[in-house]
Amino acid sequence: MAFDLERPFKFSETSVRQCLPSQLKPKPPVSELGFGTQFTDHMLRVEYDVDKGGWQSPLIVPLEPLTLHPAAKGLHYALQLFEGMKAYRGVDGRIRVFRPDLNMARMNNSALRISLPQFDGEELLKCIKKLVSLDREWVPISETASLYIRPTLVATDPVLGVNAPSSALLYVILSPVGPYFQTMKALTLLAEPNYVRAWPGGSGSTKVGANYGPTIYVQSVAKEVGAHQILWLFGENHAVTEAGAMNVFCVFINDKGRIELSTPPLNGLILPGVTRASILDLAREWNEFDVSERFLTMSDIVKLRSENRLLEFFGSGTAVLVNPVERLIYNNQVIDIPTMDQPDPIFLRLLRTLTDIQYGRLKHPWAEEID
Amino acid sequence: MAFDLERPFKFSETSVRQCLPSQLKPKPPVSELGFGTQFTDHMLRVEYDVDKGGWQSPLIVPLEPLTLHPAAKGLHYALQLFEGMKAYRGVDGRIRVFRPDLNMARMNNSALRISLPQFDGEELLKCIKKLVSLDREWVPISETASLYIRPTLVATDPVLGVNAPSSALLYVILSPVGPYFQTMKALTLLAEPNYVRAWPGGSGSTKVGANYGPTIYVQSVAKEVGAHQILWLFGENHAVTEAGAMNVFCVFINDKGRIELSTPPLNGLILPGVTRASILDLAREWNEFDVSERFLTMSDIVKLRSENRLLEFFGSGTAVLVNPVERLIYNNQVIDIPTMDQPDPIFLRLLRTLTDIQYGRLKHPWAEEID
Repeated sequence: MAFDLERPFKFSETSVRQCLPSQLKPKPPVSELGFGTQFTDHMLRVEYDVDKGGWQSPLIVPLEPLTLHPAAKGLHYALQLFEGMKAYRGVDGRIRVFRPDLNMARMNNSALRISLPQFDGEELLKCIKKLVSLDREWVPISETASLYIRPTLVATDPVLGVNAPSSALLYVILSPVGPYFQTMKALTLLAEPNYVRAWPGGSGSTKVGANYGPTIYVQSVAKEVGAHQILWLFGENHAVTEAGAMNVFCVFINDKGRIELSTPPLNGLILPGVTRASILDLAREWNEFDVSERFLTMSDIVKLRSENRLLEFFGSGTAVLVNPVERLIYNNQVIDIPTMDQPDPIFLRLLRTLTDIQYGRLKHPWAEEID
Repeated sequence: MAFDLERPFKFSETSVRQCLPSQLKPKPPVSELGFGTQFTDHMLRVEYDVDKGGWQSPLIVPLEPLTLHPAAKGLHYALQLFEGMKAYRGVDGRIRVFRPDLNMARMNNSALRISLPQFDGEELLKCIKKLVSLDREWVPISETASLYIRPTLVATDPVLGVNAPSSALLYVILSPVGPYFQTMKALTLLAEPNYVRAWPGGSGSTKVGANYGPTIYVQSVAKEVGAHQILWLFGENHAVTEAGAMNVFCVFINDKGRIELSTPPLNGLILPGVTRASILDLAREWNEFDVSERFLTMSDIVKLRSENRLLEFFGSGTAVLVNPVERLIYNNQVIDIPTMDQPDPIFLRLLRTLTDIQYGRLKHPWAEEID
């Protein structure tokens, strides 16, 4: 491999070039935050160049445009990956990130799959914490908003051959965000078997750009029938896999007459979401209902609904956290799901517990404080 | 759709800002040309911005770095596509491009699939011809080299939501190239069923970046066993689909005892190659052997070989044109193919005919002269 870690990068080498006070941008009011439309004052940059021995020293600099050769491989062959994390300002005023080690591990898995250089995740995490600390005034004072952290890695070498890049740029930008969907509302999903998000032997279990671009056209198909997102199916039996860019969960009465919380297993088609893992961990710790990782088919869903055994359906992800689903459209039929009618819904309990941890209302080792 | 052609762009609006004579770079000798490592003096840029009404006027400018916001969607979600074309300097000194209308049509198909704005292909082609004409001294004086033309379209709007972009940049760069593989030699391919290039309901029939990046890791698997490229298979019966980034052709004695030239059909998994289409057109015009578009499985290949009915195997594409294959590795077994042992191989006749057209030795409507 071209990407032995000849030269790793270390947080201790980081140089910081701060904005002048006159360059600092005004912070937007929480009520005006969208998703990923505004960015903070600084960014992190780490260059990789085989000709210079590998990774170069990290730089924290004022947010600035990238200057790329028009032949840069990242613009032609989707040699690019990203991560999504958030920093939360707790009720105690302290800033926390949520299980960032999982993002670092996943980012390295994505890098391997898309032929970009790997790195020491602990060192990148220290750099990210430093960046967030420098732009800490951008972390919204709000229990529904947060500072979205977007690490990105993209190939930069200006060579048109379809092969592994010899140079790349890792960068991190920060964006104060409100809820991903403008108002927290239950979603309608279109289960559309004619488009497929991921395939065995593909890259569906990593967070590479290539998994996202081709889905946007399909979103427009969903919009045409009044749905918010696509429910991605796989295989002849229409197994449920993901929704939009979220993992999915279903709550139902299983054949043993017990309540079961279920999500698809990590078989290579499913993104290993940090929120997904945390939901499974919490639910197993509670030990109050069955928890499973298995595929449900659309036939299973239809049957459960017809027998009044389908209780809840929801998506999860860093951007949305937990988002209820109240309706599926499948084969031109509407399947209403009583997610919002449950007296004590599991999705809401999970949402509350996760936000309690993230906003410091509940002390938990998953929440790491930033100095 | 956001991308009605509110405002198309037209060649007649093109502005040209030429390099100063002192900025012109020296042209490399033909013997030192690689593939896509050197670029000419000028580039074409056309911006698209919903807020400005759609497409802006084309600009031909000195080759310059792109300045992109680090949140530009093209760097995160593989909202990008490209084309590959070539300009050839003929034996008569005139410069020609080969069936460029097919590239323009495919580029618009790619744009639709990856949610980028469509455009009038005839207008873009006029702009490209103007660009090539301006940099005509870069078209190598050689019957094995050419000027590779790389149109690219990438989303530029700095918004992290996974949805259709409101701004994009179409640009074209030019690179003098030698043969794609350093020496024209017969290839060894690894038929590897554990990785998949494309699937039904995906984007495999369009030229979007997302189809290329994830294949590079798999190339390294091929290299490990001494193969040059991957032979992409699909389905439980291991149907042969493509090789590396090439279409594939097989020549064999069919069940009727006749020679047959066969390539996979355009069922959504296969890139509709311009060279592929031209090979089919030529072979059908010759009408000397059977020509088919159908899938062959690896079992078919093994059986044909064991019965001494397998004659030739080759890849096709704009970069390689026609490249013979002499060996497949499949299930740890080697399948030798006598492509190079045929007395009058079809691949070579096709290669000669195509290059005769491209280099002006044979007058043909597929070759369009550039003034």
